[in-house]
Amino acid sequence: MSKKQIAVILSGCGHQDGAEIHEATFTLWAIHKNGADYRCFAPNIMQHHVLNHITGQEMDEQRNVLIEAARIARGKIEDLARFDAAAVDALVIPGGVGAAKNLCTYAFDGPKCRVNKDVEQAVKAMHQAGKPIGALCIAPVLLARILGDITLTIGQDAKTEEHLRLLGASHQSTLHGEITVDQENKIVSTPCYMLDSRVDQIADGADALIQALLRFL
Amino acid sequence: MSKKQIAVILSGCGHQDGAEIHEATFTLWAIHKNGADYRCFAPNIMQHHVLNHITGQEMDEQRNVLIEAARIARGKIEDLARFDAAAVDALVIPGGVGAAKNLCTYAFDGPKCRVNKDVEQAVKAMHQAGKPIGALCIAPVLLARILGDITLTIGQDAKTEEHLRLLGASHQSTLHGEITVDQENKIVSTPCYMLDSRVDQIADGADALIQALLRFL
Repeated sequence: MSKKQIAVILSGCGHQDGAEIHEATFTLWAIHKNGADYRCFAPNIMQHHVLNHITGQEMDEQRNVLIEAARIARGKIEDLARFDAAAVDALVIPGGVGAAKNLCTYAFDGPKCRVNKDVEQAVKAMHQAGKPIGALCIAPVLLARILGDITLTIGQDAKTEEHLRLLGASHQSTLHGEITVDQENKIVSTPCYMLDSRVDQIADGADALIQALLRFL
Repeated sequence: MSKKQIAVILSGCGHQDGAEIHEATFTLWAIHKNGADYRCFAPNIMQHHVLNHITGQEMDEQRNVLIEAARIARGKIEDLARFDAAAVDALVIPGGVGAAKNLCTYAFDGPKCRVNKDVEQAVKAMHQAGKPIGALCIAPVLLARILGDITLTIGQDAKTEEHLRLLGASHQSTLHGEITVDQENKIVSTPCYMLDSRVDQIADGADALIQALLRFL
């Protein structure tokens, strides 16, 4: 039997303006560890901005989401515009504020955010095909914006929970390494750095999430 | 008993021009997983260059090693110039070609490479204090350049092994997840992406390395 193929959508490289590096790395690790293979994707667009990760200040630079995400994927990454839901078995979106700045505008516009069209098409195509989708950290908000009435977790943050309710989603509180599974919609989420976490707790959450996704296959 | 403190020297963010992201992340993970704490450091210098990680081509940009490494460290990183060997229990240097481009010039000059002075001082201070040092992937070459007659591994690469011999070091061949321990010099190394590896094999190597370092403490 050939290995299950899991698509991973990255939003850059660095948690303040792109994909959270630990969450993305542990997603890839958990996929390999549990006997599946991954294909990384990112939208071929410019980042919303570039932040100095020491000071949090904006830098006078422009960076491309796909090119920066390639740093996490070690060069093996594809333009999300060419994503084909028929070619993969599941989809995962790691967190980092990049998921809320580059994949959608949630960081700026809250629940009325716009979603990148390639991201929206990929998520909708997977959902319509009845294939499981996972989201870490803040990325579940993106799924709620696209799919509406789903059950998910972003940990324990009251403001984000309120936004999820406005989007029609149901929230379940979780702690380190825990997951929320929406059996009907085949959606798995885990809080990761939405909680103040140790690095190994991020790995535990990613591992639990990937195992739950694979149980749907 | 307070937790053991392990210093981690990063060389940027991305394996072609900086620190290998998976190796760095799994180093931090293994430190937390095994009950210790880390402090990340990087030299406050410009990267040798910036490479597009999809094409491998040089980009017309300049980036700072410390600022980029902060992406992996989630902002908690210190200038290596302020490193104090007395304040930590062990030192680890993850790989990535950045270790051979930014921490020293091995990628360009081979065994006659120059070493960044802050890196050299940190390694010498730890070694003289009898504290253990770990190195992943290509980073053991840096230790050989600084310390000379030590035993280490870079996996199976004949050309690099020859360079290590020219530097006075002894090489032990290793496979995925294996480590070489130089008991006398308290140096632990593991090949990681010097071999063609799955992501979970990188985690196994980092975990074995951190456990071996902690056994010296």
